[in-house]
Amino acid sequence: MTPKALLFDVFGTCVDWRTSVAREAAALGLPGEAVADAWRGRYQPQLETVRSGAREWVVLDVLHREALDHVLDELGLELGESERDELTLAWHRLDPWPDTVEGLTRLKRRFAIAPCSNGHIAQSVNLARHAGLPWDAILGAEIARAYKPDPRVYEASVAALGLEPGEAMMVAAHNGDLHAAAACGLRTAFVPRPREYGPEQETDLHAEGDFDVEAADLPGLADALGV
Amino acid sequence: MTPKALLFDVFGTCVDWRTSVAREAAALGLPGEAVADAWRGRYQPQLETVRSGAREWVVLDVLHREALDHVLDELGLELGESERDELTLAWHRLDPWPDTVEGLTRLKRRFAIAPCSNGHIAQSVNLARHAGLPWDAILGAEIARAYKPDPRVYEASVAALGLEPGEAMMVAAHNGDLHAAAACGLRTAFVPRPREYGPEQETDLHAEGDFDVEAADLPGLADALGV
Repeated sequence: MTPKALLFDVFGTCVDWRTSVAREAAALGLPGEAVADAWRGRYQPQLETVRSGAREWVVLDVLHREALDHVLDELGLELGESERDELTLAWHRLDPWPDTVEGLTRLKRRFAIAPCSNGHIAQSVNLARHAGLPWDAILGAEIARAYKPDPRVYEASVAALGLEPGEAMMVAAHNGDLHAAAACGLRTAFVPRPREYGPEQETDLHAEGDFDVEAADLPGLADALGV
Repeated sequence: MTPKALLFDVFGTCVDWRTSVAREAAALGLPGEAVADAWRGRYQPQLETVRSGAREWVVLDVLHREALDHVLDELGLELGESERDELTLAWHRLDPWPDTVEGLTRLKRRFAIAPCSNGHIAQSVNLARHAGLPWDAILGAEIARAYKPDPRVYEASVAALGLEPGEAMMVAAHNGDLHAAAACGLRTAFVPRPREYGPEQETDLHAEGDFDVEAADLPGLADALGV
């Protein structure tokens, strides 16, 4: 049975956050890759403060802005307040991987496609307009007011499409995301992004689980799904 | 100042619900226009049961399905249960007005565009895929769990885009929708759809208020906004 809708992880799976954020940081005179890596390093610990219930759900812009202060302090870097605000919006202007737009465009012919990302709606809309991601809807963290891998994010996204979990397929470059989606009953597709974390990446190079599909990239996923 | 995003009413403003529903009803052997008109006639009274707090928010499919039973009973018409379920989904397959796709496509070049409709996300996604409506996101009733003209629907849609009310413009063929949006601080654009209710339509033929823009159709709105 083929799914009716495809839900996508975005950071890393559809867009190259590291190169894009590093470029914007470097344009402000900062060491780009060091800032990008340290910033992303704060991501899971910050999401965990929401997932654990230690703080109320807030949009990712708020978490990114707080993390940037922490990162610059840690790296001993100076940057004005308004430039910190502007750099935070780099996460709204990430470039797609070279195959992303072609792959999503093909997949959209057959399936409803939507992000199931930890990005909020405003960030996802700005990112889609920047990167040319032809989503049918913006689902994910904000409609659930929770952060992946909290099951509520997958469940709310599937329910918003009026589907049963088995009628949707989660597409991600991260094994953990797919294991969490599978636990909610979604189908799963692994697409590796072996340079998401730079040339030395050692994790998520291969599928580590019994996923429904493994494809080299998004056009490869379209091939595998017969589009 | 030009807006950053445009929010659209959908039923009547972007799509011709009457002709589309009548056609599907007629294909089932029913008097198409009579069913479409009576069905839409139940719309505001049903929404009011949610707006008044008499019942919990439910998606429009549920309200449409209940209304169909009422309408068929009232008109003395017979139809099986599974055909009633299927006919309810006619509201997911409405055709656009001839200018809609061209107009939205032009407007999307400059502005983020999204429905601020009483349709739910699944209905809006199916409708957009059927009619070719190139939305950036699906906003409106479901994210607010309320029905227009409840101010929470406009407010939640603007907030989801990370905007202030004055940065968004509501586009509708209905004066009441625009008055409610204006009361929330949104900018407003009136686009008449003088045959939405058929050849005898007598309401909403003209703007009745101090709206920011009045245009003959959606390409005319693009002209007026300098796109």
